[in-house]
Amino acid sequence: MKKYNVAVVGATGMVGRKFLQVLEERKLPVENYYLFASARSAGKKVAFMGKEYTVEELTETCFDGKDIDIALFSAGGGTSEKFAPVAVKAGALVIDNSSAWRMDPKVPLVVPEVNPEDIAWNSGIIANPNCSTIQAMVALKPLDDKYKIKRVVYSTYQAVSGAGMGGYSDLENGINGDAPKKFPYPIFGNCLPQIDVFDEDDYTKEELKMINETRKILHHDDMRITATTVRVPVFHGHSESINVEFEKDYDLDDLKKTLADFPGLIVMDEVKKGEGSGIYPMAVEIAGKDEVYVGRIRRDRSVESGVNLWVVADNIRKGAATNAVQIAQKWIDMQNK
Amino acid sequence: MKKYNVAVVGATGMVGRKFLQVLEERKLPVENYYLFASARSAGKKVAFMGKEYTVEELTETCFDGKDIDIALFSAGGGTSEKFAPVAVKAGALVIDNSSAWRMDPKVPLVVPEVNPEDIAWNSGIIANPNCSTIQAMVALKPLDDKYKIKRVVYSTYQAVSGAGMGGYSDLENGINGDAPKKFPYPIFGNCLPQIDVFDEDDYTKEELKMINETRKILHHDDMRITATTVRVPVFHGHSESINVEFEKDYDLDDLKKTLADFPGLIVMDEVKKGEGSGIYPMAVEIAGKDEVYVGRIRRDRSVESGVNLWVVADNIRKGAATNAVQIAQKWIDMQNK
Repeated sequence: MKKYNVAVVGATGMVGRKFLQVLEERKLPVENYYLFASARSAGKKVAFMGKEYTVEELTETCFDGKDIDIALFSAGGGTSEKFAPVAVKAGALVIDNSSAWRMDPKVPLVVPEVNPEDIAWNSGIIANPNCSTIQAMVALKPLDDKYKIKRVVYSTYQAVSGAGMGGYSDLENGINGDAPKKFPYPIFGNCLPQIDVFDEDDYTKEELKMINETRKILHHDDMRITATTVRVPVFHGHSESINVEFEKDYDLDDLKKTLADFPGLIVMDEVKKGEGSGIYPMAVEIAGKDEVYVGRIRRDRSVESGVNLWVVADNIRKGAATNAVQIAQKWIDMQNK
Repeated sequence: MKKYNVAVVGATGMVGRKFLQVLEERKLPVENYYLFASARSAGKKVAFMGKEYTVEELTETCFDGKDIDIALFSAGGGTSEKFAPVAVKAGALVIDNSSAWRMDPKVPLVVPEVNPEDIAWNSGIIANPNCSTIQAMVALKPLDDKYKIKRVVYSTYQAVSGAGMGGYSDLENGINGDAPKKFPYPIFGNCLPQIDVFDEDDYTKEELKMINETRKILHHDDMRITATTVRVPVFHGHSESINVEFEKDYDLDDLKKTLADFPGLIVMDEVKKGEGSGIYPMAVEIAGKDEVYVGRIRRDRSVESGVNLWVVADNIRKGAATNAVQIAQKWIDMQNK
């Protein structure tokens, strides 16, 4: 079996470091790894795969002569916009974690459990969806297939790690009363109903990402969706309250089984009437896991056929690094078929 | 003008103490105050209205001979069930903050800005609604009147103070890694998708309260409502993501004006496309305020006529003590008309 040369671009950021960790765990058939970052981080030594790597500077020529097969990008949107085509030109498949390419009609947007077939039509770049979208897709795909989704109302509870190390520090330092640096307002003991900047119709970009990316990934362009995305004082793990309306009616046990049978999705839903504490996914327990967890599965009697879901995943793993590495794995599998 | 004798039952709990604070601020026409609590707290000295009060034990005869006009109850449901009729028999109007009487058809459930007229038909007890319901009502009432609400999807972000001092301590001590005592799971750095015990259809009692109390307060029995209620690591202030669908179409500016014109409701909603931080209500800023705040007001294009709202209020003030004292004020006004 062929072995691949893999580059990680943006290897020193919060998500980039998680890329390295997930790559170590998943043991892809790799010949050589190359780590890249901006000039500021270039030259840094990074322990990876049992040896020491030196981070190289990301430049227009940095990929040349290295025969790189896969380049995992976890840099900002601007960097991806500029350097993803450079990597593609040098012969690499780019799997990009930024928002730069996600809505480009020539770029597949992939959650491997959901739409692996879209990997095939890439023309050099595959986009990794937004963290809050990825976990919702794993829960909604089997339901859309079986009951056809008519409408979705998202309300999110998103961890500070989604805003990188700065977000993490703001929560940590906020405990001591320090003013925030990354966020516009304190996050400790607070909920911020704004993620990313404001855009059309007074929706934030994060909200529009959830709406637009959901439609693209599920190939369901007329799906009715609205979203309110909120940052909460949680370090790791996004939670989502998802209200779904279907075209077809469903049986609740059948729906739960449909969810439980879907790959990468774990149903965690035990409640007993009148008793103290149920079992449902929670950020502190799901942090560090690669799967998406769903609980609080209840019929919504306010519509003919509706359900409420509570969906939790590690936003840096399944919401970013794990999903990207899974795309790479799937692509490799497809090369070897 | 007549002066009234007022009792506070459960004067030493978290909400009870807020009752005393709000009573001090609002200067009702009161002759005498009486503070009551369980045997455990009886005998405690409490500084109130510039003097020292001794907390008396709540008993079957404690109201006798005191000519109490208004008894504000902030004890548990069991205590209210047992002692509210005792206070009524002794001649008092009971304003009860527990859930014991809320859905009793003979008991009005009142938010003074929303349904003050219901005060008139009380037969001794008026119920104070659930904290998460009260703030939603102040935002939804003017919209229901003008555009007729068809359906509501609630997702809440509720502060630990809603669970009393134990909830507060769990968050405070959780920072140091201490195990929770009040909540079944850690609340620091976590979201708990369960408030109160589970009931019908795997909904929690908190969720059913929001559904049932909304219908009763708005006198809108067929309103379609669903809810997911979540405890978040916030000390003070409940936030709510409320998705609303109307029967009639609306103009967004008109809707915002309708909200801004409603008493007790403050619109806090400034966003600029592409710019860093908007202005919207947040728990840390709204804590200590008596009004309900609404922001993130956006058209929901996934239905013919829909809107998203972000509603924040101090759950111990407007969500409990302030609302109860406002009911007392309104009742006094009605006696003097």
